[in-house]
Amino acid sequence: MARIRLRIDFDGEHYIGHGRIELLELIGRHGSISQAAKAMGMSYKRAWYLIDGFNAMFREPLIERHQGGRGGGSATLTPFGERMIAEYRAMEAKALHVFAEPVRFLEDRLVKAANGRRKPKTAAPRRQ
Amino acid sequence: MARIRLRIDFDGEHYIGHGRIELLELIGRHGSISQAAKAMGMSYKRAWYLIDGFNAMFREPLIERHQGGRGGGSATLTPFGERMIAEYRAMEAKALHVFAEPVRFLEDRLVKAANGRRKPKTAAPRRQ
Repeated sequence: MARIRLRIDFDGEHYIGHGRIELLELIGRHGSISQAAKAMGMSYKRAWYLIDGFNAMFREPLIERHQGGRGGGSATLTPFGERMIAEYRAMEAKALHVFAEPVRFLEDRLVKAANGRRKPKTAAPRRQ
Repeated sequence: MARIRLRIDFDGEHYIGHGRIELLELIGRHGSISQAAKAMGMSYKRAWYLIDGFNAMFREPLIERHQGGRGGGSATLTPFGERMIAEYRAMEAKALHVFAEPVRFLEDRLVKAANGRRKPKTAAPRRQ
């Protein structure tokens, strides 16, 4: 079953992609950046910078960080963060519907069986 | 002006993304994998493997390679390769139209001016 992932580039610098949305969702689910990073198999530092950049892209914040006591702080989604996820996931779902025909056209032409794979004409890169 | 890039994942292994399509287009334009690689700022070897994997994904080839004489070989798009580009670019164009409303919603909330950027609450990563 095909899946369509969307990346919205607002300009050369600002974009929304499935990785950022997934991280945002996991922060909402776990209530913590470190737990979300762990769930994505990503370092805490990388997740922190990813969500920090995403959070600073908009005039409203996507998450709120709360300095905690002993157990460390927590992070929660703002209503705008929830809205961001909902908009993106709705677009993804709609894309599958809107593009069902061209996706099926391409899917029907995929090599299915491993033994049906066409061999490359040349065995190794040769400048051409 | 926003742009939407699509990645179609057929399964965990097979996908079509904008990088592959761009490479395919450039091969068509230049008639050569090495020229296309150069235009994308990519090594010839990397471009070769990228297009070789893409070309082997489908039951019909996307490009045909011709062993050349002195000047090296050339590569041309097949009708299916041309169709692939047309389908993908049509989907991209349609996506901008179909998702105009949510994209505008998000775009309107972007921080525009550099001095309007909200500062992160904490200056450095701190586990939370």
